[in-house]
Amino acid sequence: MIGIDWGSSGFRAYRIASDGAVLERRVAASGIASLTPTDYAAVLQQQIGDWLQAEPEAAVLLSGMVGSRQGWREAAYAECPVGPGDLADKLCPVELGDGRIAHIVPGLSCRNAEGIPDVMRGEETQIFGLDLAGDASICLPGTHSKHVQLRAGRIVGFATAMTGEVFALLKNHGLIAAMLEPETGADLDTAAFEAGLALSGRPGGLLHHIFSVRTRRLFNELSGTAATHYLSGILIGHELRVTAWAGRVVIVGTGVLAMRYRKAFAFLGMDADVAPEDAAAAGLYRLGQLAARRTP
Amino acid sequence: MIGIDWGSSGFRAYRIASDGAVLERRVAASGIASLTPTDYAAVLQQQIGDWLQAEPEAAVLLSGMVGSRQGWREAAYAECPVGPGDLADKLCPVELGDGRIAHIVPGLSCRNAEGIPDVMRGEETQIFGLDLAGDASICLPGTHSKHVQLRAGRIVGFATAMTGEVFALLKNHGLIAAMLEPETGADLDTAAFEAGLALSGRPGGLLHHIFSVRTRRLFNELSGTAATHYLSGILIGHELRVTAWAGRVVIVGTGVLAMRYRKAFAFLGMDADVAPEDAAAAGLYRLGQLAARRTP
Repeated sequence: MIGIDWGSSGFRAYRIASDGAVLERRVAASGIASLTPTDYAAVLQQQIGDWLQAEPEAAVLLSGMVGSRQGWREAAYAECPVGPGDLADKLCPVELGDGRIAHIVPGLSCRNAEGIPDVMRGEETQIFGLDLAGDASICLPGTHSKHVQLRAGRIVGFATAMTGEVFALLKNHGLIAAMLEPETGADLDTAAFEAGLALSGRPGGLLHHIFSVRTRRLFNELSGTAATHYLSGILIGHELRVTAWAGRVVIVGTGVLAMRYRKAFAFLGMDADVAPEDAAAAGLYRLGQLAARRTP
Repeated sequence: MIGIDWGSSGFRAYRIASDGAVLERRVAASGIASLTPTDYAAVLQQQIGDWLQAEPEAAVLLSGMVGSRQGWREAAYAECPVGPGDLADKLCPVELGDGRIAHIVPGLSCRNAEGIPDVMRGEETQIFGLDLAGDASICLPGTHSKHVQLRAGRIVGFATAMTGEVFALLKNHGLIAAMLEPETGADLDTAAFEAGLALSGRPGGLLHHIFSVRTRRLFNELSGTAATHYLSGILIGHELRVTAWAGRVVIVGTGVLAMRYRKAFAFLGMDADVAPEDAAAAGLYRLGQLAARRTP
């Protein structure tokens, strides 16, 4: 089968063997933010035309913002609680061009105790890729971090925190942007990051705490790089203290960001492990298998 | 005397009679963000050259970001606790060009219980313009809102909340920007604003609550205009619940924003009054009077 994780800013394709092994992967910057509905089939041909041709019978499954209102075709949200079988039942077909049909995995919606809705697209597929049968608390860090509650293998509720977006806005457009140095890969200033995490637990609130990035730069208490990691610590600290679920947490993410979240959970005295990578490929495979069993 | 409130984005000049009455005011967009140190004397000549010529003996007093490192000349912060007399003693001279000297009011700094610094420039002058002899809690809403504690007429501590800046970043650059309608003057959607204020007191935290602007738009629960006021309510609610001081609050600000904060305080069950306008002119006059008494 062919699985594609197609988000706002990125495209990841996986050629997956019948036993679930990832045979090949392709990554491109063709996120849905830059596409119109008529572009998708062409982008697929361009990126993985050879795969489609080589395996004309292979199922093609897509997850992520590709199924949003701004994507290829809107796949209505499945309402929590949702298990993998529910999603396999609700796949949304799209035409690849020559009569071939691909399917989009629907996103999830839930309502919290206040009746406020929340949504995800793509993360549900990664979560089901973990193949957790029991209960778990899951954290997917990112532009819009997700904190998810799994009960008996089903997603029963979740909450989004706009941590990554607010970080990017402050870094790129804010009045403190000029005081920050860009981050250079994996080199985390741990002391500054933990100072931010610690501050997030003190009185005054997030809108007050972030101003200290400015004042501590002004008084030369932080370098430009340290200030960036301090800001990251403040924001992630606020997120984890109030949005994360209780209990041992599984972090689903890759590279630097997943490591940073693990460090943050540990600093805050919360247990967390990082899940193996390629959760999206595993989830696409699992949903593909479930859907195949249902199709006569 | 001539008093000037010169901030990052604006310039307000007041011609003030010896009894404190404001005879004339001029407003310009020449904020310090667009100026270099050599520009200031020229801008003054351009904006109020006629006042300077007509009253060659008048004292000229400036407050605000004009005294910052990025301004005309850096006026070192006065450390809290600070009364108006302390500021009058620490005015920082600048040359107007023909041997005439103007003075800049220094900003204030303080450190909170965690040792984190905070700063203000310009607000101190407005606060002393209120001429409050006793104790008070003061709120100055804005891009960087200030919450100030006055004890026996002196500023003993304060905290900044970046409410206005975060609101502007989300409205202008964020992923929810496209879902919001621009605000149209004074017409506040009170129901949406109060829904945001109410949400700010619920679990989940600020980074989670602001995501509901997106989801509630997605589910057509809010119009674009209502969503803007809902976001405003979420942010102001978070600010006031954790950054404002206890006790009756005096709001120092003008127009729509001051009214919105008064509404927010009332909704949250906190007492607040809006101070009379032109607090900056009154503060510049008061500090000018104090300085004149000290000069032999």
